[in-house]
Formats: sequence, C-alpha cells, structure tokens
Amino acid sequence: MFRSTPPLQEHLRPVAVRDRPQADVDGYLDAVERRLRSLFGEQRVRWQHRYPQLGVGFDAVESFVLNGGKRLRPRFAYWGWVGAGGLRRPAPNPIDAPPVAWSTPLVELGAAIELFHAFALIHDDVMDGSATRRHQPTVHHRFAALHGEAGWRGESRRTAEGFAILLGDLAFAWSSHLLVALPAPVAALFDEMRIELHMGQYLDLFCAATGDDDPATAADVVRFKTAAYSVQRPLQLGTALAACGATAPTAPGSDGEPLDRCWTAYGLAVGEAFQHRDDLLGVFGDTAVTGKPVGDDLQAGKNTLLLQRTLAAAGAGSLEVLGGIGSGELRPQDIEVIGTFMRDCGAVDAVERRIARLVCEAVAAVEAAPLEPEAADGLCSLARAAAWRAQ
Amino acid sequence: MFRSTPPLQEHLRPVAVRDRPQADVDGYLDAVERRLRSLFGEQRVRWQHRYPQLGVGFDAVESFVLNGGKRLRPRFAYWGWVGAGGLRRPAPNPIDAPPVAWSTPLVELGAAIELFHAFALIHDDVMDGSATRRHQPTVHHRFAALHGEAGWRGESRRTAEGFAILLGDLAFAWSSHLLVALPAPVAALFDEMRIELHMGQYLDLFCAATGDDDPATAADVVRFKTAAYSVQRPLQLGTALAACGATAPTAPGSDGEPLDRCWTAYGLAVGEAFQHRDDLLGVFGDTAVTGKPVGDDLQAGKNTLLLQRTLAAAGAGSLEVLGGIGSGELRPQDIEVIGTFMRDCGAVDAVERRIARLVCEAVAAVEAAPLEPEAADGLCSLARAAAWRAQ
Repeated sequence: MFRSTPPLQEHLRPVAVRDRPQADVDGYLDAVERRLRSLFGEQRVRWQHRYPQLGVGFDAVESFVLNGGKRLRPRFAYWGWVGAGGLRRPAPNPIDAPPVAWSTPLVELGAAIELFHAFALIHDDVMDGSATRRHQPTVHHRFAALHGEAGWRGESRRTAEGFAILLGDLAFAWSSHLLVALPAPVAALFDEMRIELHMGQYLDLFCAATGDDDPATAADVVRFKTAAYSVQRPLQLGTALAACGATAPTAPGSDGEPLDRCWTAYGLAVGEAFQHRDDLLGVFGDTAVTGKPVGDDLQAGKNTLLLQRTLAAAGAGSLEVLGGIGSGELRPQDIEVIGTFMRDCGAVDAVERRIARLVCEAVAAVEAAPLEPEAADGLCSLARAAAWRAQ
Repeated sequence: MFRSTPPLQEHLRPVAVRDRPQADVDGYLDAVERRLRSLFGEQRVRWQHRYPQLGVGFDAVESFVLNGGKRLRPRFAYWGWVGAGGLRRPAPNPIDAPPVAWSTPLVELGAAIELFHAFALIHDDVMDGSATRRHQPTVHHRFAALHGEAGWRGESRRTAEGFAILLGDLAFAWSSHLLVALPAPVAALFDEMRIELHMGQYLDLFCAATGDDDPATAADVVRFKTAAYSVQRPLQLGTALAACGATAPTAPGSDGEPLDRCWTAYGLAVGEAFQHRDDLLGVFGDTAVTGKPVGDDLQAGKNTLLLQRTLAAAGAGSLEVLGGIGSGELRPQDIEVIGTFMRDCGAVDAVERRIARLVCEAVAAVEAAPLEPEAADGLCSLARAAAWRAQ
C-alpha cells in the first residue's frame, strides 16, 4: 500500500507553524538501532569484503550489541534532551517530511553510548572471567569455542581473551567514530564519563583484590558505575546536546543549573534503586529472563545491602549455610536455603522498602525541576521501570 | 641567575615582522613530555588524592609512558605539520614571548598519540603474554608481582591482566580527552587510524591462531600496523592540523594531494624498513639496548623476510637447528647458531640491502614533494634513523 498524497494545504503550510513533534522514545530507539545496523553494514562493506577473516569478529560484536540490552542509557539521553527543550528545536526537515521526535546528532549519541557500553561489558566479562551475558556466551567464551572447534593454535585462553580485548577496543573506536559528529561540549562530557567509569572499575577491582570493604569506597563505586554512568551522565549528555542546538533560551530549564541538580538527585536515586534490584535479581531472578546465572553475588560474597541486612538478622551461627557465602562453593540448594532465609528474616522487605523510597525521591526530584512535562512523565515511568524490572 | 631585560627595540618590534620560528623537533618533544606530565599531575590531583588506591595504577601507566619510547609517531606528526607550512602560521603569542616552533593543539596531538600508543602496547602485551617492554616488566607482570607480594585475592593471572586491560582502557580514555581540543577533521583522522590499527591487530591475531600465512595478508598487516599507524597517519595528522590553521593557501603543498602522495610513499618505505630493522634486532639486537629479549620471533616462527631468505639459502636439512624455529623450544645457543648462519649465508646482507633501497625510496618521495625545506631535511634524517637504529 502506498501512502496517499497529503491534502494541498498540508503542502502549503510553512514549516515554522507546524505542530512540534511529540516525544517518541520508541521511535528514537528504533532510529538508534538502525544507526547501529548501518554502522556495522558500512564497516563490513569496507573491511570484511576484503578480509573475510574479520567476519567472526564482526559477528561477535554485532550480535552482542543488537541482540539484547535494555537501551537504558540512550533512554536517559533522550529524556535529558526532551527535558531541556530539545523537541522545541527539532532538526530542520525538508518541507515534505514529517517532523521527527529526535535529531540526527541525538541518534549518533545513542549509538555511541551503546557501543561504548558494549566495549565496557566485553572487557568486564574478561576481567571477571564470566561465561554468559545477555543469554549468550560472552565474547571470549565464543572465541574459546571457536578455538576448540577449529583446532586453532596457541593457548585457548590467551587467544580467546586476546580477541575479546581487541573486539572491545574496536567497539570503543567505533563509539569514538560516532562522537566526531557531535559538538565539542558533548564529546568532552562523554570523555568525562569514560574516565569516571574506568576509575569506578579500577576501585571495584582493587577492593575485590585486596579485600578492602570500606563502605564509603563501595558506595562511590556504585555511584561511578551505576548512578553516574548509567543515569546522570546520559541525562546530562542529552541536555548538553539540546543546549548546543539552542540559539536563545526558550526551554524552561535552559539556564542549566536546576536541571543539572535534578539529574544528579534523580541519577543517585535511580542508580541506587537499580543496583538493589540487580542484587535481588542476582539471588531471586529467573535466569531465563535475566540471562545471568543465579547466586553469583553470593558465591563472590558481594557486599550488598541485601546481604548486610541478612547477616544482621541472622546473628552469629544461626544458619550454618551462611558461612559458605563468599567461598565460591555454594551448591544450588544452599542458594535456595539462603534465599528463603532472606525472605523470612525480612531482609528482602527491607531492600524493597529502600527501593520504593528511592523511587519516591527520584519522582520528587523530577517534579521539583523546570522540565518539559513530557520528560517529567517519561522519567517517572522510567524510574519505576528500572526499579521494578524483572531482568 | 635572572634573565637580563631585553633591549628596548626588542620590545617595540611588532609581532608581525618577527622572524618566524625555526623547526625544533626536540623543543616540540619536550613540550609533549611536559603535557603528558601535566595530564598525569591533573589526574592525580583529581582522583588519587581522594582514592589513594589509584596510586599503583597511575604509577604503572605513567612510568610506562614517560620512561622510554622513541616518540617516533609525534616526530612524524611534527614534520607533517612543518611540511605543510605549520611554522608559517604559528600560534599567536603574547608580545613579550618568543615565537615557538609548534602550536598548542600540535602538543595535544603528540601527547594523545603517545597515550594511544601506550594503550595499544599495554593490551598487546596481554594478548601476547609478554613479560618485558621498554626495559621494564609489562603492566600485567607488574600487577602479578604485586598480587604475589601483597597476597591479593583471586587468581593472579585474571587479576593482573584485568588491571592491565583497565589501565590500557584508561590510557585510551585520556588520549581521547586530549583530542577534544583538536579540530574535527584531525579527530576524524585519528579515529580512522584507531580503527585501522585494530583491524591490523585482529588480522595478525587471526593469522597466528589459524596458521594462515598468506603473504598478501601478512604484507597488509605490516602496512596497517607499521607503515600506516607509525608513519603515514602521524604525518597526515600533522598536515591536517596545519591545514585547519590555514586561512589562505600560503604553504607550498597546501593543495594537499601531492603532500598526501608523499606521506603514503614515504610511510610505506619507512614502515617496511622499520619492520626489517625490528626483525634484525629481534635476532641480533642487544637486549640491554632494545629492552626486548632476543630470539622471540624465531621461537614464534614469525614469517619475516630475514627468515624467508635464510630458509631459501639453507635448503632442506642443511642445518638441523633450523627445524626448531617456531617450536618455542630454541635454547640460547641455538639462536646464536641460527644467527651466525643468517650472516654467513647472506640473508642478513640481503635484508640490509632491502633496507637501504627503502631508505632511498623514502628520500626520493620527500625530494619530489612540495615540502618546506626544513621538513624535507628532518624527514630524510628520520628515515635513516628509523632504518639504522640500535633499539
């Protein structure tokens, strides 16, 4: 079916008086997806046609990026852009195209964020020695399987992890390649986010290696790795992009400061809630939905609020199996017993109450800020979705 | 001692009629060194003061970057800039400052190149499982030692390589952070260089894993990893930066094309010569000077021109010890016997002749190009220095 020709008056209506587009986060995420696909397509045409050996590497990165992922960070970037009045300054369109609910640089930004995230996760999986992610084998496990099947030379672990390091680096380089199209203040903020995430990762690795369980450092690690990286920085990136398109202060929050205070408060609250949900899913989640094995945090003895509450309620020696936490040797039935105890002793309820309080704080931060109303609605929904998700 | 006040007429001389600065590659490299030091200083003030745990990580990256390295790539970037007339458009200086032989963005570029190179080498050493680099333990070996000495938790290899991956990523992020100050065409070219290097690395890893010894692919790997990455791209980056500062076509090569042809021809010749010298040093070099162990390429069976000539001269079974090449089990005395045979059979002379021819080609490319004379001299010296170096 072809689209019917619009009535004449539509054609004659000048662009300036057109209705401005309505927020459309799904449409935006579709555009990000298309951009990612087009980037992989361009890179395959340019490189893989000449060197077919690159095929397995490109497949590994592409399936990692395209099959799964909640696209949480591009969502926040979108609402940061809408919140700062980005929709009031849509990208100029040809007269016969409908107004769109995003601009091209915003799509480049969303795709760059997802490629950077893929880089961080691919390297993270090597550092943690993880086997699965997003319901698939991790990149280095994929290459270890190839090494075995095809009878490749060299040590399997060295070769497979080498490919994963390199393909992570490539995802990072592709992410940077997209950033070149963005205004300098946005690229500078992106760099800030990268450096901050690496510091958080380093501190996390260092504390795990040395057994340092200083609660202030642990809280900062969550702040760097979750609140800032996943929520606050993407919101700021969207806002910075909207500000670069502004020629005059037309958006309600265009002086920047109150918006920035909101992003910080909202980011801290949603980031912490997200982390607590992650910790609950790590014990009670359905592997078929989360794509991650159950009980890994207990095996590693990860110092979560859930575990703190559990140990406080248990008292010394009240449940023998708790002594196995952190040993890496818990059996599936041990994890089930610990889970039941966590529910019975009230630790789960306590964490759920904390999550609910954090969502209220996030909503209050949004309501107090001079945001575009659509963004306020979108961010309140997103806070709830992040806090009460099943995966 | 204080500097004496300059005579009055010096003060009154207008900036416009000042002599333009003379090329000063050593002065430029000093400025790059200072920029690297100031970046590490800023990052330590910002992060390490709050998290002292970062100290060992920062030390590892800083000593890797500052202690050693031939600074070959910033040298090429400098001559690419001078060659395209960069000195005719020096950065504006305050009236009482002497004219300098570089601009601030060129210093940022040189420091960004060196940090990117550090990232590539730190990851490369993990992928190859190398123990030493630049006369020091590699970053992951440094952390493996720390793991042992301090009795850290977890598997030593996983933890140590995790730190090296992360610190390489951090060097990459710092490199990007410096690029934000550069014009978009320069940043885009830098990204191109990154992607190209990763493709070369991937092909290298893939050929090593699968035993693919297709000579065309091997030649392309050298081109990506040495000719383009180490020579041609740095030259183009310097030229692109000079072009961004140009307001009118004043430089002799300012239409770009003949210069670009020169950089390609010179890059291919010098890159190949550099690689052959590397291969010779890999067998005959002095570890105390090169900082790398002798014989590694023979242990790995690396398909070099030197080895091809040696095997062609030897004929089947003429020297038993040659059969051990690629086995990883050659003893030091075997490597010495092979080295003596390589000299006696004329293989070394053949490679030396090839290097001399490549240097002639590089010089011819420079002489045919519309370059600033200082750059032509500098590049001819640099081609000889890269081809006939001892480390």
